[in-house]
Amino acid sequence: MSALPQSWVASANTGVTDFPLQNLPYGVFSTASQPTPRVGVAIGDQVLDLAALEAAGVLKVAEAGGATVFSQPAINAFVALGSAAWRATRARLTSLLAVGGDAALRENASLRAQALVPLAQVTLHLPVQVPGYTDFYSSREHATNVGSMFRDPANALLPNWLEIPIGYNGRASSVVVSGTPIHRPNGQIKLPDAPRPIFDACRKLDFELETGFIVGRETSLGDSLSVDAAEAAIFGMVLLNDWSARDLQQWEYVPLGPFNSKSFGTSISPWVVTMEALEPFRVAGPEQNPQPVSYLQQQGKHAFDIALEVLMQADGDAQATSICRTNFRHMYWSMAQQFAHHTVSGCNVRVGDLMGSGTISGPTPDSFGSLLELTWNGKNPITLASGAKRTFIEDGDTVMIAGWCQGDGYRVGFGEVTGQILPAKAR
Amino acid sequence: MSALPQSWVASANTGVTDFPLQNLPYGVFSTASQPTPRVGVAIGDQVLDLAALEAAGVLKVAEAGGATVFSQPAINAFVALGSAAWRATRARLTSLLAVGGDAALRENASLRAQALVPLAQVTLHLPVQVPGYTDFYSSREHATNVGSMFRDPANALLPNWLEIPIGYNGRASSVVVSGTPIHRPNGQIKLPDAPRPIFDACRKLDFELETGFIVGRETSLGDSLSVDAAEAAIFGMVLLNDWSARDLQQWEYVPLGPFNSKSFGTSISPWVVTMEALEPFRVAGPEQNPQPVSYLQQQGKHAFDIALEVLMQADGDAQATSICRTNFRHMYWSMAQQFAHHTVSGCNVRVGDLMGSGTISGPTPDSFGSLLELTWNGKNPITLASGAKRTFIEDGDTVMIAGWCQGDGYRVGFGEVTGQILPAKAR
Repeated sequence: MSALPQSWVASANTGVTDFPLQNLPYGVFSTASQPTPRVGVAIGDQVLDLAALEAAGVLKVAEAGGATVFSQPAINAFVALGSAAWRATRARLTSLLAVGGDAALRENASLRAQALVPLAQVTLHLPVQVPGYTDFYSSREHATNVGSMFRDPANALLPNWLEIPIGYNGRASSVVVSGTPIHRPNGQIKLPDAPRPIFDACRKLDFELETGFIVGRETSLGDSLSVDAAEAAIFGMVLLNDWSARDLQQWEYVPLGPFNSKSFGTSISPWVVTMEALEPFRVAGPEQNPQPVSYLQQQGKHAFDIALEVLMQADGDAQATSICRTNFRHMYWSMAQQFAHHTVSGCNVRVGDLMGSGTISGPTPDSFGSLLELTWNGKNPITLASGAKRTFIEDGDTVMIAGWCQGDGYRVGFGEVTGQILPAKAR
Repeated sequence: MSALPQSWVASANTGVTDFPLQNLPYGVFSTASQPTPRVGVAIGDQVLDLAALEAAGVLKVAEAGGATVFSQPAINAFVALGSAAWRATRARLTSLLAVGGDAALRENASLRAQALVPLAQVTLHLPVQVPGYTDFYSSREHATNVGSMFRDPANALLPNWLEIPIGYNGRASSVVVSGTPIHRPNGQIKLPDAPRPIFDACRKLDFELETGFIVGRETSLGDSLSVDAAEAAIFGMVLLNDWSARDLQQWEYVPLGPFNSKSFGTSISPWVVTMEALEPFRVAGPEQNPQPVSYLQQQGKHAFDIALEVLMQADGDAQATSICRTNFRHMYWSMAQQFAHHTVSGCNVRVGDLMGSGTISGPTPDSFGSLLELTWNGKNPITLASGAKRTFIEDGDTVMIAGWCQGDGYRVGFGEVTGQILPAKAR
């Protein structure tokens, strides 16, 4: 423990905080006294106001007129500066916050008072302006579960699944920050015995445990990125809940994929954890057999050891109940492969694009990343700590996803993404 | 003819121009001498520079700090002002350009010289910044053709097709303006006899004849629009070519829909024709049987009589060959129904969102809106005027889509959307 770098922000050194000196995730926040959203990093139980550091001349992001990149309501302008700026800023912030580092902030009481704001006092906003949202489907266990339920357990994986990091374009407009309530969607439901669909509120509302990565550079139409170039172009990661209306989805998805069953809301965590902070947690992913075609081949370790947990809390429950524990390392396709595949046709990407992992399910029933799988399409209800039973999400329920990398004496955490389901609006 | 309103811009009165006084479509243009993109309307063979009219005080868009809405590189700021501003601006422009109208432009030689720029001298840009792109699948003839080819001719339409205006989220980043060349995409192709896919350039490159509409208002997450409210919120329409890689599509699309096979490029025409200009061409659409579920029901006429033509020209051909003639009025689902369906789950929309019709195919073989259908998946090649045969698009080929509404003595035209296919980039 003693060798661990310590911050003079004491709450960063507890060993259990999500936000130690080793993390420094980026987010966008505002306060009652200063309601303009701006960029900060989380450190212990505080937010460090980077716009205030810029204004005080303590933080200089030199490139591309960078003096104002942190006074914006999204991290995109900073991200667009590129990886050299990401590294330099991380090094500078580490020095400013470390015991024994640069004293410019530590020894300046008025700047400290201005620039360090308790997390409990801030409003967190969507950290990134999302030009495009893509969702992948890269957990072999999830795809196998879904295929077993809706098709043939003996041939659960479709023929293309082991060849392509299957993905689809999601709806960027409805990506919201953690804490945003979501109305139960209305839509067409085709009951098994009915000749025609009915129009009603969704009866099989689900979450999907996912992570997402944030694209850190733009490409031109016609260009593609190798797996290595793609990996280098990832800025960071968030937790993601891909809310899903299973009954709407089942009826609408043939042949062009999910649409209204997904587009009513996608929640992400407010803190973007950088790939630099995640680097110590890089591990080998599952063996890929068959070896992918050329543009998807990669050497080395491209998975990350990120513990994930889903909790559910009914309205009025005294506490949330853990209903799933799994790990991001189980994912069959890496983020680099997903991203390279996205561009291989020449599709251009933009800074801030969000790319979801797909539901993350582990190998055991308690590690499945959706109620569809946990209850096996409603056949086996789960029981919350309060005794309430659930097959799918009911009105008033809150779903929380947490994620963290466990280091030796510290954790690099994502915080959480949470959302409460409100009743459907009148039709 | 004599009763038709005439413009003092003589080229607007030919009867065959796409851009008479009755049209006034919005676009974004620049010139060599003034390279900053700005908003204009097409009139005859000229572009009227609305930013110049604003600067001269001749055009005042009062609402929402509107004095600068036309000096921007997209029409979004103007569109966001809402339908009262659309109507008022159209009335003002009509008066400024009409014989016998307001003399402020007509009698001001220096303003005329500044604000009227020959179309032949301008560069046209993407007219709208597209936050979200959705593509529907609303031609019954197209869906039937595809279903007959790839599934069962006796059950060509899937069970949900007559109930849902099927659509999917497309890729907004790769929406480009007419004239932008498109590289043939690379990707995974699964040949019928091969055990595994190969990685190669697309061999079945296709166009899709479509139109698209531009969303004119924003909605909040959780809200939905009725069919009537949706129709009132449409600003205007464009021609759209949804370039499609059929071999990539066939392999990748199960179960989440098309992705790389579509995301390498979508071309739209540079002029947005307003719904006000299209109003005289409103007609009844096909009868809908069964009657749709409640939120999709509508009374009255919701289709539009828009003649459409596709031309194809091989590199070196002296002229383009007409390969398809059809009409937008054949579409089974109306734009209002598509738009209402998009929001019924609570998905929010934004000003500038682009919603494609889906391939527009008519009832006869010469009215099919894709090479997939025209050549019946390559079985029956078409012959161009030069004698060249085509099953799918070859490198160097140019595809042009034109569209117009034929009035009595005038036409309200869309101009065209054109694009040339360049060879695949090296892999």
